[in-house]
Amino acid sequence: MKNKPWETKITEIQENEIRIHGYTIEDLMEKKSFAETAFLLFTGKLPDGNEGKLFKSMMVACADHGVTPPSTLAALTAASTGSPMNGALAAGILSINEFHGGAIENTMKFLIQLKERSMEGDESELRTIADDIVKNYTQQNMRLPGFGHRIHTKDPRTVKLLMLAKELELSGTYVDSLLLVQDVLSSVTGKSIPVNVDGALGALLLDLAVPHEYANAFFIMSRVPGLIAHIFEEQTMQKKMRRIDPVNHIYTGEGPKALL
Amino acid sequence: MKNKPWETKITEIQENEIRIHGYTIEDLMEKKSFAETAFLLFTGKLPDGNEGKLFKSMMVACADHGVTPPSTLAALTAASTGSPMNGALAAGILSINEFHGGAIENTMKFLIQLKERSMEGDESELRTIADDIVKNYTQQNMRLPGFGHRIHTKDPRTVKLLMLAKELELSGTYVDSLLLVQDVLSSVTGKSIPVNVDGALGALLLDLAVPHEYANAFFIMSRVPGLIAHIFEEQTMQKKMRRIDPVNHIYTGEGPKALL
Amino acid sequence: MKNKPWETKITEIQENEIRIHGYTIEDLMEKKSFAETAFLLFTGKLPDGNEGKLFKSMMVACADHGVTPPSTLAALTAASTGSPMNGALAAGILSINEFHGGAIENTMKFLIQLKERSMEGDESELRTIADDIVKNYTQQNMRLPGFGHRIHTKDPRTVKLLMLAKELELSGTYVDSLLLVQDVLSSVTGKSIPVNVDGALGALLLDLAVPHEYANAFFIMSRVPGLIAHIFEEQTMQKKMRRIDPVNHIYTGEGPKALL
Amino acid sequence: MKNKPWETKITEIQENEIRIHGYTIEDLMEKKSFAETAFLLFTGKLPDGNEGKLFKSMMVACADHGVTPPSTLAALTAASTGSPMNGALAAGILSINEFHGGAIENTMKFLIQLKERSMEGDESELRTIADDIVKNYTQQNMRLPGFGHRIHTKDPRTVKLLMLAKELELSGTYVDSLLLVQDVLSSVTGKSIPVNVDGALGALLLDLAVPHEYANAFFIMSRVPGLIAHIFEEQTMQKKMRRIDPVNHIYTGEGPKALL
Repeated sequence: MKNKPWETKITEIQENEIRIHGYTIEDLMEKKSFAETAFLLFTGKLPDGNEGKLFKSMMVACADHGVTPPSTLAALTAASTGSPMNGALAAGILSINEFHGGAIENTMKFLIQLKERSMEGDESELRTIADDIVKNYTQQNMRLPGFGHRIHTKDPRTVKLLMLAKELELSGTYVDSLLLVQDVLSSVTGKSIPVNVDGALGALLLDLAVPHEYANAFFIMSRVPGLIAHIFEEQTMQKKMRRIDPVNHIYTGEGPKALL
Repeated sequence: MKNKPWETKITEIQENEIRIHGYTIEDLMEKKSFAETAFLLFTGKLPDGNEGKLFKSMMVACADHGVTPPSTLAALTAASTGSPMNGALAAGILSINEFHGGAIENTMKFLIQLKERSMEGDESELRTIADDIVKNYTQQNMRLPGFGHRIHTKDPRTVKLLMLAKELELSGTYVDSLLLVQDVLSSVTGKSIPVNVDGALGALLLDLAVPHEYANAFFIMSRVPGLIAHIFEEQTMQKKMRRIDPVNHIYTGEGPKALL
Repeated sequence: MKNKPWETKITEIQENEIRIHGYTIEDLMEKKSFAETAFLLFTGKLPDGNEGKLFKSMMVACADHGVTPPSTLAALTAASTGSPMNGALAAGILSINEFHGGAIENTMKFLIQLKERSMEGDESELRTIADDIVKNYTQQNMRLPGFGHRIHTKDPRTVKLLMLAKELELSGTYVDSLLLVQDVLSSVTGKSIPVNVDGALGALLLDLAVPHEYANAFFIMSRVPGLIAHIFEEQTMQKKMRRIDPVNHIYTGEGPKALL
Repeated sequence: MKNKPWETKITEIQENEIRIHGYTIEDLMEKKSFAETAFLLFTGKLPDGNEGKLFKSMMVACADHGVTPPSTLAALTAASTGSPMNGALAAGILSINEFHGGAIENTMKFLIQLKERSMEGDESELRTIADDIVKNYTQQNMRLPGFGHRIHTKDPRTVKLLMLAKELELSGTYVDSLLLVQDVLSSVTGKSIPVNVDGALGALLLDLAVPHEYANAFFIMSRVPGLIAHIFEEQTMQKKMRRIDPVNHIYTGEGPKALL
């Protein structure tokens, strides 16, 4: 059972030399932001023009959202039992999945599908297809990914992201599609259900040519500083194993049984 | 940078032969219980006489304790976001630390310390030392590990464990010490604060000669089936990302600041 | 945002009373094995007759397989950097997925599919369908789940499991199907590719009426004692951060680039 | 068992308003870098002057170091078995502990201890104390944290970090102490053992007034993009469960035993 050499195209390590996709680590340290370096690691190339600036703003948008999200709850639960930082952080990251953070990738898949179905089409054709998809969702009582939020009706992150993308001239065809779907959704339902931050992030990642497989990783990377701050607060300021149990609980299973 | 061979004393693998500490896997599968096999893996030897039976009862005692412990809360939080089974289980395991499950090891360390201080002593000397230690704890308002429970005043697991150990003639000097401390604690505080399940498990692990470094691992191994059952229930019966947020939350940090 | 009560059908906790699916914890501690308790937690009912004995042997079969599996490698890697027990165990569990341990569930899905396609059929019809499926796999150069092993040609665990199941009169229609597929595979390929331990476990879990969603959880639960023993060995016997790097590694990415 | 409200000083969430330590998320998205936002989350205040620039360079320095570190090995091991991104990332993070990444915090503790012992002293007193500490380490054959590297003799990251800190006028008393210790170490051992990247990062974190409890978190946060890139490469480019076993392995435990 012979091991093949361990092959990578990402980083070259030699004595006293570290190069990420060809660039020396010292050049990156001096001239590039952390967001630009992350973009390089994700996609293999440095961002062009204003792309790094937009990517940075997208990361900052995700940096924290207080104590209530499931990832924070899991991280604080672990921390309150005496976990070291990395164990609590891992518990938080393990709680970022399809139903928390996952709407970014779902929006991306939805927008890709929309684009594929209208490859040659003009805007009116796109609207017809979008109308078809949206009705399909609403008839099945399913939530369209990227729209609506449990707390915010006009999420400040979404507003700022779409504005910055326009200012930086990086708002592309995926953002256009997303806004068209917002219009259609409003017509079909008769309600205003705005693009949420996951929707905006998904469209912008596509306009930046980041593969959809990175969506969850992008959100996790960006939320790490917030999770760390909450864990540190828990470790240093709170009572150990404080009561973070759910409000109340009921047993609805079978009644007592004897074991003969 | 040459790798040394990967050395182990636990399991020998050859083509068509698997031996754990010398015993073939087929012999263990046919003649030994899972608890006995776990004991062999932990300590390097099969349990003697009734030891396997007691070790099994100790494992069953820990198999589940409903939805409220932090490990279940973290596991269900991860599961409710769409985590696969192993991710949610890992989040649960990462929430078993000093302040949840950890009282087993703390009891063990406490009893070892007590024994070391009274190496040559008779029972009355042991009582004096115990008295000294207990007063030290109570004067500092610290909780003695292995005593008291947030829900149970007379934990059925403790009662059964101590009874079984006596019946199986495996209740040894560490259980004796623990019961002596219970007496002393009652005299010092004037209250009845009974041995809890962590205390009983700690004393019994010592009487079975299991090293205290295994205490947390023992609890985790035993709780795994319960965590799995709760995760499966969450995955199959509950709404996605259901509201498991804490009751309410307040922000007590600094007020609004402008960024110029 | 009101929280609903936290509902569960698994374990009822009241002051001084703990019941799992109706049975008191003390009854289970005294009268049932750990494997039987795990079966109860997984399926909601205690095993009948010899089922608990077979389930136990299946668990023991998975308890350890030495240092080379990916789960052990990940656990030891974490441990060698100074991780506490639960962090290293979590890293190991996170490395049990479709391509390590996952063949149990894939075998189960394959056998369920086979059964569904031959609902009303006799054995000769079953053989025709199996022949069809097997050829489909081999023509696409895909490995049939549950057959062949990288080390063992005649895995002692498989032999013992099938023998025990027969002796305990628990070898059912899923084991029959699996052996029939083994026959067909041998005819189609002209080679003897025996049922492996994952295949045997998958068929037996189905014959015990355990849902396929539990397959990975079953393997993880059973491997936990082995992982714990390896982590403890690493923590107590080995040099810190020992060289567990792959043999060698090559960079095959882009050459040096200047950053202007 | 009443739950207290969940209290935090970090982030305030209200409908359509998100403020981190008082600053609106939109202001941070527009005007601050990701590194500055992370600094705010860690310390409660935005970096002054050039501090954000230095903190960013420190993060970039840690962004990746190829496939060989234990964290990458554990992450790739998990990924090669079919883990989703977050599970593999968690396995990697669980492998960043005292003996991988931990030298940053150990350097910080060492420098704090040195400072405390020489509170009132001038440089010559500091040198005497450093001499004392260094001899203590070398006589016990212990490695001084923050010095030497398994691959690099003149680590480009260290050189660049110390140079940037000087240029940005942020090289403070902790860097001075570290360089003084380097001098002393060279005198005592007669060998040149340069400050390594962990040493430089530790001293700079102290000069930036970041608490030492954040050291491991800082390294993890900074390495996350590199781990993500390696996991993505593994998931998309490599064969499943490729052979990442150690070169070879030997069993050194007890010989065969029969079970009667």
